Amino acid sequence: MVQRLTEFDTIAAISTPIGEGGISIVRMSGEEAVTIANRVFKGKNLEQVPTHTINYGHVVDPASGQVIDEVMVSVMRAPKTFTKEDVVEINCHGGIVVTNDILRLLLANGARMADPGEFTKRAFVNGRIDLTQAESVMDIIRAKTDKARAVAVRQLAGGLLEEIRAIRQQILDVLANVEVNIDYPEYDEEQVTAEKMRACSEKATAEIDRLLQTAQEGQILRNGLATAIVGRPNVGKSSLLNYLTQSDKAIVTDVAGTTRDTLEEYVSVRGVPLKLIDTAGIHHTEDTVEKIGVERSKQAIGQADLVLLLLDASQELTAEDQRLLDYTKDKKRIIVLNKTDLGVKLDADQLESSQSPVIATSILQKAHLDELEDLIKQLFFSGIENSNDQVLVTNQRQAGLLEQAKRQLADVVSGLEAGMPVDLVQIDFTGAWETLGEITGESSPDELINDLFSQFCLGK
Amino acid sequence: MVQRLTEFDTIAAISTPIGEGGISIVRMSGEEAVTIANRVFKGKNLEQVPTHTINYGHVVDPASGQVIDEVMVSVMRAPKTFTKEDVVEINCHGGIVVTNDILRLLLANGARMADPGEFTKRAFVNGRIDLTQAESVMDIIRAKTDKARAVAVRQLAGGLLEEIRAIRQQILDVLANVEVNIDYPEYDEEQVTAEKMRACSEKATAEIDRLLQTAQEGQILRNGLATAIVGRPNVGKSSLLNYLTQSDKAIVTDVAGTTRDTLEEYVSVRGVPLKLIDTAGIHHTEDTVEKIGVERSKQAIGQADLVLLLLDASQELTAEDQRLLDYTKDKKRIIVLNKTDLGVKLDADQLESSQSPVIATSILQKAHLDELEDLIKQLFFSGIENSNDQVLVTNQRQAGLLEQAKRQLADVVSGLEAGMPVDLVQIDFTGAWETLGEITGESSPDELINDLFSQFCLGK
Repeated sequence: MVQRLTEFDTIAAISTPIGEGGISIVRMSGEEAVTIANRVFKGKNLEQVPTHTINYGHVVDPASGQVIDEVMVSVMRAPKTFTKEDVVEINCHGGIVVTNDILRLLLANGARMADPGEFTKRAFVNGRIDLTQAESVMDIIRAKTDKARAVAVRQLAGGLLEEIRAIRQQILDVLANVEVNIDYPEYDEEQVTAEKMRACSEKATAEIDRLLQTAQEGQILRNGLATAIVGRPNVGKSSLLNYLTQSDKAIVTDVAGTTRDTLEEYVSVRGVPLKLIDTAGIHHTEDTVEKIGVERSKQAIGQADLVLLLLDASQELTAEDQRLLDYTKDKKRIIVLNKTDLGVKLDADQLESSQSPVIATSILQKAHLDELEDLIKQLFFSGIENSNDQVLVTNQRQAGLLEQAKRQLADVVSGLEAGMPVDLVQIDFTGAWETLGEITGESSPDELINDLFSQFCLGK
Repeated sequence: MVQRLTEFDTIAAISTPIGEGGISIVRMSGEEAVTIANRVFKGKNLEQVPTHTINYGHVVDPASGQVIDEVMVSVMRAPKTFTKEDVVEINCHGGIVVTNDILRLLLANGARMADPGEFTKRAFVNGRIDLTQAESVMDIIRAKTDKARAVAVRQLAGGLLEEIRAIRQQILDVLANVEVNIDYPEYDEEQVTAEKMRACSEKATAEIDRLLQTAQEGQILRNGLATAIVGRPNVGKSSLLNYLTQSDKAIVTDVAGTTRDTLEEYVSVRGVPLKLIDTAGIHHTEDTVEKIGVERSKQAIGQADLVLLLLDASQELTAEDQRLLDYTKDKKRIIVLNKTDLGVKLDADQLESSQSPVIATSILQKAHLDELEDLIKQLFFSGIENSNDQVLVTNQRQAGLLEQAKRQLADVVSGLEAGMPVDLVQIDFTGAWETLGEITGESSPDELINDLFSQFCLGK
């Protein structure tokens, strides 16, 4: 269990993205936050201002008397703050040097540099949010589409937390029953308890299954659907790529420090974020025919959740087409029969054996591309459209723990069926309760907590 | 003259750098700012909260009822705000999608997308700051060193504005005198007025000269000193570059959208920001001897404000060294005699004819590099150290207008010396007064104002 400390030192970090902009925020949290801010602030006595107010003044180095910047300082006193501690946010001019200067000054005057995710960790440790809500904070920040953002916001509001808590409570009620049996064997009702445990396990399993059904969709929303566009030269890969990236589907993902080499292209197709693989290869080498082909595509196909295989409808199937068909046959794929405007020598019927959906189109004339988009959505998001408010399991950690709890509950059921005594079966039953608690953080070991928050960005 | 409007529409923009971070700010300014924010906010009635308060709640799309994000909203009512208008800042999670979603929602609910610099322009048009202060806002954001930031902050506090206003007032006082002469010729005191005008012109010229003396330093602080490191292969260019860039002198300049190809390397030497030219060439081709030499360096030398010419002290002067010495002879340069640890076959005396300062060093052993740094500072910043509070003219616009005013005042003096009548000379005298007013924006044409603010970043 995580230790709930009531006192922490005061941490500081730059909370806005690094770069040149209108405003940057340097944030502090902790008992000394207001005191430290007051040491470097001229304009007002921050110790005496009401909570949740914005105060105009200057940051001044108390050692040299030098004015660092003209600022607005937000003072928010515990407990109604992000961390449940005193929080001070200094809004300064959004330059790299000025923002770093202010952070350095706070560190020189009593604050400690915050670890990545440490503000959110404090919100968790101080009991304002659970682990699923903490994870949703980063999911909101990293969201690639509106839908991904909406799911994360719902999780931040406690959607998944409530579901998990309800399941845990049911298990706990039965566990209390078992304890009564052990403490007061004269009231022995082992048979009744076993039946309750079994019923509870089956009900909990059904609920976990329902949550797990959303996991694939949740993870696609969060991470994007890795998509490879493949086909032999001049079949229209560039055209399809341009259609996807040059329309309003393109998702801006340029972030500080990103260089062209590692830039990932994301597009949003009916709310499904596609992460396009090896688009640089398509962009740069489409015209150098000899460099493309099966070999070049193999790596992209290996990483793909979805393959868009392009064939030329105006020509007979070539040997290279056939190799690509064979090579991608175990992948989720959509066959795009391009260039129907040039006459049709290859049609969907001839591809029936591929057992993949086929879209006949002319990308040039933008024919049937709506159908392609619908198909992509149906393949992956069958359940989502009509259930926009459903809770989604959004990451591998949550899904893995749900799977583990499910296995433990299965062991409970099979143990009871094999006639094992309740106080033995109870071990797995309690285990499932604890595993579910790890999802919310109520029974997570410290190392896990530390590991999870270390993946956050600095200043959050 | 700029028209002082009292009513504007309400503008909105993302005011923090674009990227993934803990917090982003979407800012609005204008009469409708609070009303529009209130339309998309749930948690409180923002129309009724006190000014300069921070309010917790959610941004909700009123059309769909969808929750966009959990936010803190700062409400600041006119006139004590950045723009002197009602200002609302929505602090949301620092993701690209969520921040754009909130901006879009504000635009859909009555706000207009702000032009670059439009918030600062309103602060100017509404009379809170003058043009020099507006320029200092961007200078703070783009500052490359502490010193550059300090100069900009001083300018934001009105340092240059006060100096210019004082000179203008002196001119205006004399002009009033001339008007009296024209309106009441019976009190003709033309000779007295001419003398006053001449004295005033000379005094103003001296003050303008004092300001112009700071212009070179101000512009170096603002833009960095373009510095080329040149020398024949293997003379130690990489070592010097590494010394400069790998120590604590390196200035972080990675900003969103910057790619390696266009990355400029900045280092801070005794507070002087050096912008290193063609460092990619040094990094990549030092070992491919044949590619370097005079030709390769010519372009870098052409752009340079300062040339650091490296020679090998352990060898005789080569023909290539001599070519580089000749080619850079009209530049501000420092000759760095490297590799003194390998014995000295070339010393400073032999380079006396170069008329450049020479530093004998072993970069490998970090010998005498302090002296090199001192020398760089002395060459460019002779006056600054002991006058840290002096006003600096920081850009070409300001310097150009000061030069123009100076020429107009010189014409006044020469006109009076040539015996021209006061009411003719007065044209140049008034011209100088107006030119100085353009620096502060008090007499700037609209187009100039618009052009100036369009160079600002979005959201400021």
